[in-house]
Formats: sequence, structure tokens, C-alpha cells
Amino acid sequence: MKLRDAGEFGAIARIARRAAAGRASRGAVRLGIGDDAAVLRLRHGEDLVASVDASVEDVHFRRARTGAELVGRRALVAAASDLAAMGARPVAFLFALGAPPALPLRWLDACVAGMVAEARALALPLAGGNVTRGRKVSLTITVLGAVRRDHALRRDRARAGDRLFVTGALGAAALDLVRSERLGRPRRHRPAARIEAGLRLARIPAVGACIDVSDGLVADLAHVLHASRVDVELDRARLPVPRGFAASCRRLGLDPLDVAATGGEDFELLFTLRPGGLSEAALARRLGVPVREIGRIVARRRGSLARAGRRHPASRAGGFRHF
Amino acid sequence: MKLRDAGEFGAIARIARRAAAGRASRGAVRLGIGDDAAVLRLRHGEDLVASVDASVEDVHFRRARTGAELVGRRALVAAASDLAAMGARPVAFLFALGAPPALPLRWLDACVAGMVAEARALALPLAGGNVTRGRKVSLTITVLGAVRRDHALRRDRARAGDRLFVTGALGAAALDLVRSERLGRPRRHRPAARIEAGLRLARIPAVGACIDVSDGLVADLAHVLHASRVDVELDRARLPVPRGFAASCRRLGLDPLDVAATGGEDFELLFTLRPGGLSEAALARRLGVPVREIGRIVARRRGSLARAGRRHPASRAGGFRHF
Repeated sequence: MKLRDAGEFGAIARIARRAAAGRASRGAVRLGIGDDAAVLRLRHGEDLVASVDASVEDVHFRRARTGAELVGRRALVAAASDLAAMGARPVAFLFALGAPPALPLRWLDACVAGMVAEARALALPLAGGNVTRGRKVSLTITVLGAVRRDHALRRDRARAGDRLFVTGALGAAALDLVRSERLGRPRRHRPAARIEAGLRLARIPAVGACIDVSDGLVADLAHVLHASRVDVELDRARLPVPRGFAASCRRLGLDPLDVAATGGEDFELLFTLRPGGLSEAALARRLGVPVREIGRIVARRRGSLARAGRRHPASRAGGFRHF
Repeated sequence: MKLRDAGEFGAIARIARRAAAGRASRGAVRLGIGDDAAVLRLRHGEDLVASVDASVEDVHFRRARTGAELVGRRALVAAASDLAAMGARPVAFLFALGAPPALPLRWLDACVAGMVAEARALALPLAGGNVTRGRKVSLTITVLGAVRRDHALRRDRARAGDRLFVTGALGAAALDLVRSERLGRPRRHRPAARIEAGLRLARIPAVGACIDVSDGLVADLAHVLHASRVDVELDRARLPVPRGFAASCRRLGLDPLDVAATGGEDFELLFTLRPGGLSEAALARRLGVPVREIGRIVARRRGSLARAGRRHPASRAGGFRHF
């Protein structure tokens, strides 16, 4: 069976069924799929947080290399990671699918199953969506969350003197991608959104800026520096990497620190804390995830990274020599 | 200049600049473009309304036939119309663009200008977005609105005895499409979202169900009947059409009532009122738009439209013979 056999409404019904089956609770959803729009209720004193993220075939994934379930998981995690970066609790998500009529329904079902499995783990119900024809598969996910008023974590709150931290480990997604492309094997890395750590971080008064590592540590750090008009002294040797990572990189002829510093899609949280305060270990306990202190925010210098970051924000090669 | 010359971040900056220039007020937007997500504030006692809608090249429009500005306008109106159908006030929108690297920046600029012009007219600020590569141009728009708690207009609230109404006139968008395809001329019809009428409708206690006419009157009426488990006696002869519409249709060999009953993208509001109450003229004054009473909701019958509508919800041909 192909998507064209189900049609637009058939596809919507399939997606809605799978989402409903996987949903522990409707949560904030007062009116879900089936009307012109969803109706959602926030709690008193909360602000709404909203972000949209697209995963497109042959740009973000290749169908030949990434299983359908992992495509769905990755798309949801990439979108939800923006809620984590804001310190927001998940409220609901909307899903716009573009797909060719010849797409096997089995592929769509597996993709939706992966997406819904990740969403369920984050208590993020599907509240609505859209299905259209497209040459390539595209998954455009809008995530809606909530934060305590004026307590959203932001990129522009780093100050000179802040300590710089990152959760978890860096580079696993990039290594998986290189392996898949060089060795022609399916992608395996399953990313996770640091929702719980983001929520806990938002409750720490000493927190400065926060961003999720989606484009790579260097690129995302540049966003923070640019938005906050500061600079950084990064301790590159302290970048946390997974166990066995260095050896795996070297076998592929890669510099482990380069991969860790520039590889994207790790979805770890990169954040700053005002000076003093918690030790690395105490902070890790508080956030419920491993945490590594990797540098210090300093005042902005002429011609420094904060400016270079503006000109080449997505660059993974030139422009960041002083790292 | 092509999109590839601007790059992802350049394109985002261009879009953000145009949106900011066109924005009268930030309104509900506490934190807009430039962080991981937008932060928005609703008023006390409001629920959030959220919907996503995609406009895709060669599915919803052809670049050769529809000017870039009109593509942007149409995409925004199609999305915002879902807020109108819920009786919601506009809060903000998110814009995910998919586009080929060779897309002329001039085209993108004009498209964004059209989108932002419509959004400005509806007091709907751009709060965030996403840009990715794609074979075809696609505009995926998430609209966020707000309704007084438990006062959203819904599809499933029609009852036997309700009077059925539609705002404005039907068929202009479909006629424009046929003209454009047959005569090979650019599309001209500029649709509008009935936001103000929706807001006013939500304040009328006698209101029953409401939906916007996006897929065509027959298809959208079927959604209401199915959701409300009722049937309808439609007075087809009373369908409102624009001035000169019948003659224009006949010149093209089309049945005007067929075009009015099945043509999509009019974005008028189709709604029911409990029996008695306001006259057509009084209702039109109350809503600030022309209104036509076009039928009556009746109890559901075996094998009736409400069921046929379920099986062929988007059908514009067979299945609705008893109209």
C-alpha cells in the first residue's frame, strides 16, 4: 500500500490513530485532531514557547541510510530540543508531513511510530497536523511548550565571568554520520532531547544563557556569544566525548576533538552559570545528567569570536582558528 | 542573487527584517526571532489555538501562474483562516520555508512581503521560523491564536433545527483558478481570512458549529455534519456568489452553482445558529460581513451525507448527488 492509496484524509486518520494509541494523557490538549485547529490550555502564570523545525529527505536524512522509525525519532527530538533549550515543559506538537504519493504506508507508519514514541517519552501529545504531496519526504514539526513567566532560558544572557558548561557528551551523532557515509551502513545513533535537564536548569537562579547543540558546539556557542555580546575562553581539551570515541575517530582518520567541537545533532545543552556556586558534580546531580565545565565567558574583544560568529555562524571550518 | 548566495542564516535575516519592518506591534511576542524558540504571552482566561498549514509549489500553486506576493498572501490567509474558524484572536505565526538554492532572492522577498502584508492586516506578528533546502518551494505556516476559555468555535456543535449560514460569497477562487488554467493568465484572486467575523461570531450565544470553507462548501459542510452527527437540507439556489459570477462561469461552460458549491479556497465561514433569533440582515450587521442563510440542519438519516462525507470527505464529484 502506498500513500496515494490512503489519500490525504486516510493518512491523517492513520497518523491520528497511532498518536492516540501512544498517548498516555491528553494533558494540555482541550481539543485535538479533527477540528480546524487545536485548543490547548496553559497553566496560570505561564508563557507559551513555540518553535518549528523541519527534517527533509536528502538534506537531513537519506531514506536509504536511515530507518523510517529513526527518521521520525530524530525529527521529533530535533524540534523538542528547542523546548529543552528554553527550559520549557512540553505542551503539544503539530506535524506537517510532505510526502510523495508512492511512499509506502509501511514507511510512514514506522516513521510516525518513532516520532510518537519519542513524543510520548516527553509527554508531548500530537495536537494537529497537515498532509501534502511533495517530491521528497519532509517532516515539519511545531513544538509548543510552557515556561514560568519571565523564566525562559535565553541565548542572550551570558555575562563575562560566567562559567560555561555542556551536558552529556559531544560527537556521537557526527561520528555515526561519518561511519554511515563511509562504510555504507545504516545510521544507528538515537539522539535525545534534554527536556528534564532544561526544566531543572530553569529553576537554578545562577543560570545565565542556554542553547541546545544542534549545529555543533562551535556554531551554537557562537550564537550565544553573539547574542550576549561576549567572548569565550574555551578549554577544548575538556570537551566531553562518549566512551571509545577517540579510538573510533582515529580509526576513521578523524581528530576526535574536531568532531566533538563541530559535529551537529548532539542536542546537548550548552549553558552558563554566574561565577561561584555549584561544583560540576553537584550540578550534575541537580540536573540529573552528566555535566562538564568547558570554559569561561570573557568580555568581548575586537575581531573576536562573537563577531566572527556573526559572519560565519554555521561555519565548521574557517573562522574559528583561535579555538 | 539566489537563495544559495544568502545561505540559511542570510535568508532568515532577510525574512526577519521584512517581518520587523511590517510589524505594527510585538503584541503577545515576548521573545521573537533569534532564540531557540519564541516566547508568547496569552491573556488571563484564554486558551491557546494552534494550527499548521502548508502551501506547496505545483500542489497549491504554480510559480509560473501565481506571482510571488500572491503565493505569500495565500499561504498566510489559508493558515489564518483556521483561526477565524475557531473564533480566535491572532497571536503570532511561525514560518517554515523549504526552497531550492536557485530560488531568486527577489522571489523570496516578494513572497515574504505578501505574507507579512496579510499578517500585518490581521495583527499576526512573525515569531519564528525555519529555512531548509527543498526541490520545490513550500511554505509551512503555524498560526497561534487565543480564545476565551471554552468558547472556541467547533465543527461538532451543529444540532438538528440549527439554521445554516455562510459569510461573503463562494466560488471566486475556483473561477480564478479555472480562468488561469484555461486562459493561461496569472492568478488574480486575493483571498481574505474572516478573522473579525469569527471573533464576533464567537460572542453570539446562539452559535452552533463553525468551519472555514477551504476545500469547498460541500466538503467542509460534510466535515461539520460528520463531526456533529447530523444531516442538512441545503438550499443550493441560495448559495451566495460574487457579482457577474454566473455569466463568467457560463462563458467558460461551467455551472455557477457547481463552482460555488465545490470550489475551494474561498475562506468564508460556514456556521450554524440555534433556531429563532437573528435575521440575515441583523446577523450581517453583527458580524460586519455579508451573510446568507443557505439551509437547515436536520437529524441524521441512514446512508445520508454525514456518512457519505466520512467516506469521501474531499470528493467534489460523486457522493453528494442529493444536493
